[in-house]
Amino acid sequence: MNCREQLERDLAAIEAFLQTAVPDGDPLYREVAEAMRYSLLAGGKRIRALFVLECCAALGGRREEALPLAAAIEMVHAYSLIHDDLPCMDDDDLRRGKPSCHKVYGEATALLAGDALLTFAFETAAGAPLPEELRLRAVAALARAAGYRGMIGGQVIDLAYENRPMEPEVLATLHRLKTGALLSVSAQLGAIAAGAGEDSQCALGDFAEDVGLAFQIADDILDAVGDEAKLGKPIGSDAEQGKTTFVTLYGVEASREQVRACTDRALCKLQRAVPGEQGGCLAHLCQSLVDRES
Amino acid sequence: MNCREQLERDLAAIEAFLQTAVPDGDPLYREVAEAMRYSLLAGGKRIRALFVLECCAALGGRREEALPLAAAIEMVHAYSLIHDDLPCMDDDDLRRGKPSCHKVYGEATALLAGDALLTFAFETAAGAPLPEELRLRAVAALARAAGYRGMIGGQVIDLAYENRPMEPEVLATLHRLKTGALLSVSAQLGAIAAGAGEDSQCALGDFAEDVGLAFQIADDILDAVGDEAKLGKPIGSDAEQGKTTFVTLYGVEASREQVRACTDRALCKLQRAVPGEQGGCLAHLCQSLVDRES
Repeated sequence: MNCREQLERDLAAIEAFLQTAVPDGDPLYREVAEAMRYSLLAGGKRIRALFVLECCAALGGRREEALPLAAAIEMVHAYSLIHDDLPCMDDDDLRRGKPSCHKVYGEATALLAGDALLTFAFETAAGAPLPEELRLRAVAALARAAGYRGMIGGQVIDLAYENRPMEPEVLATLHRLKTGALLSVSAQLGAIAAGAGEDSQCALGDFAEDVGLAFQIADDILDAVGDEAKLGKPIGSDAEQGKTTFVTLYGVEASREQVRACTDRALCKLQRAVPGEQGGCLAHLCQSLVDRES
Repeated sequence: MNCREQLERDLAAIEAFLQTAVPDGDPLYREVAEAMRYSLLAGGKRIRALFVLECCAALGGRREEALPLAAAIEMVHAYSLIHDDLPCMDDDDLRRGKPSCHKVYGEATALLAGDALLTFAFETAAGAPLPEELRLRAVAALARAAGYRGMIGGQVIDLAYENRPMEPEVLATLHRLKTGALLSVSAQLGAIAAGAGEDSQCALGDFAEDVGLAFQIADDILDAVGDEAKLGKPIGSDAEQGKTTFVTLYGVEASREQVRACTDRALCKLQRAVPGEQGGCLAHLCQSLVDRES
């Protein structure tokens, strides 16, 4: 099986797991369970979950054992999107071409569905079929990355700079927290599921943080000069909204150079963390993320 | 030291712990840390934290070791109040006589501060200075109780029945989830911190669930016939809003009888769970909650 096929198989396993991950519970609160599933099962690239599975495999673990942790990170990601879309935040009516959660279920239920997905992520990680020590490490890493010194901190910075230009260091911190923290912890969860030591956990987390940065800069470039037909959305929205991006700060060419440098650094870290051929599919995943056209 | 003095000492220890529990982190996201502290340190009875400490002590544990878990449950409680007060939920401008979080920090920051407190509760529990197995049990119990099959489920029911009468069974489920789940898990966290077995954890959780119900019915009675001066708020708001309560369903006298029955049942369970004198302060705490005038 080549890497593309492996990643497709991963994706199918992830979707299958997520399908049954959120049980209804009591009919009295079924609506919130429905809202949770609506957002959790709305598709997306499942990048974070793929990182969990492939990092686990790269360190010699079994992908199936990493599935609950992969589901947990997707729950955290889905919650963050639900809350991001609320009127008091970005006020987005659409998410991946479908009405956002609060447009379908109302604001109150959407707020609670987000809260519930976040909470259920911890329940899922704590209940994973792994040794207790590993489950605890997973919960601790997830909480740290999703918290105010991680992903939420990134959202706070994003809000604070909504209408003013960002210094380069601020933009770097923003991306490290908003995208990097969750991608980094995805890789760490994979290492944990494989039963790897904390040194391997850190090394893979470090690798994924660089991938996250490359991914984010690639995103900025696509928004500036991407192919609207392939992207499925209009380009130029960042510039229109006066948003600071790598492209507005450094221009397209220098940004492309940064993507390359960042990717090289990431792949180099990967090779040190995972000797031999075992990191092949991770390297493939990383390349596909930065080379993408949509 | 008598029980009243012991509980006062507990309260001081809890407040002192909470004061420094949420560090600033990077100045770039200091605002959300401030908003978290604003709500976490806004006072309140700290009933849940007291249950953690006293259940730990009743089972022979050291109260100091239970403090991080007590802080975690107060973080969950504070987050739920912040989100409850948001305009899309209860739209309350005041909380304990002070402007609610979103009135001070804006809706977006308040939303994120709630998210961050919930996440930080898990970080705090996972990092408690207890054996790994106990920390994992604490996280799992907390996630279950705070999730959509616990506290959030209660809020969903509350919303669904906002403008229509509630059947008695629905009201019972509502209280079991909305108040009971968090009080029950507080007692369970105390048992966990004491290193008690799962049987003791369940028994104390069961006891606290009954206390929660008695507390809630007492609340309904106070809203109907309490002393406005002592309560510090007008009475009759439940009836005015057409809310279903134990008083609207059964009347004041039958509700008082239910408080007594519930309390007796709770104290009986306590005695079975904690033999001898060790549960004295827990019984005192339980009585003070149901006999209160405000």
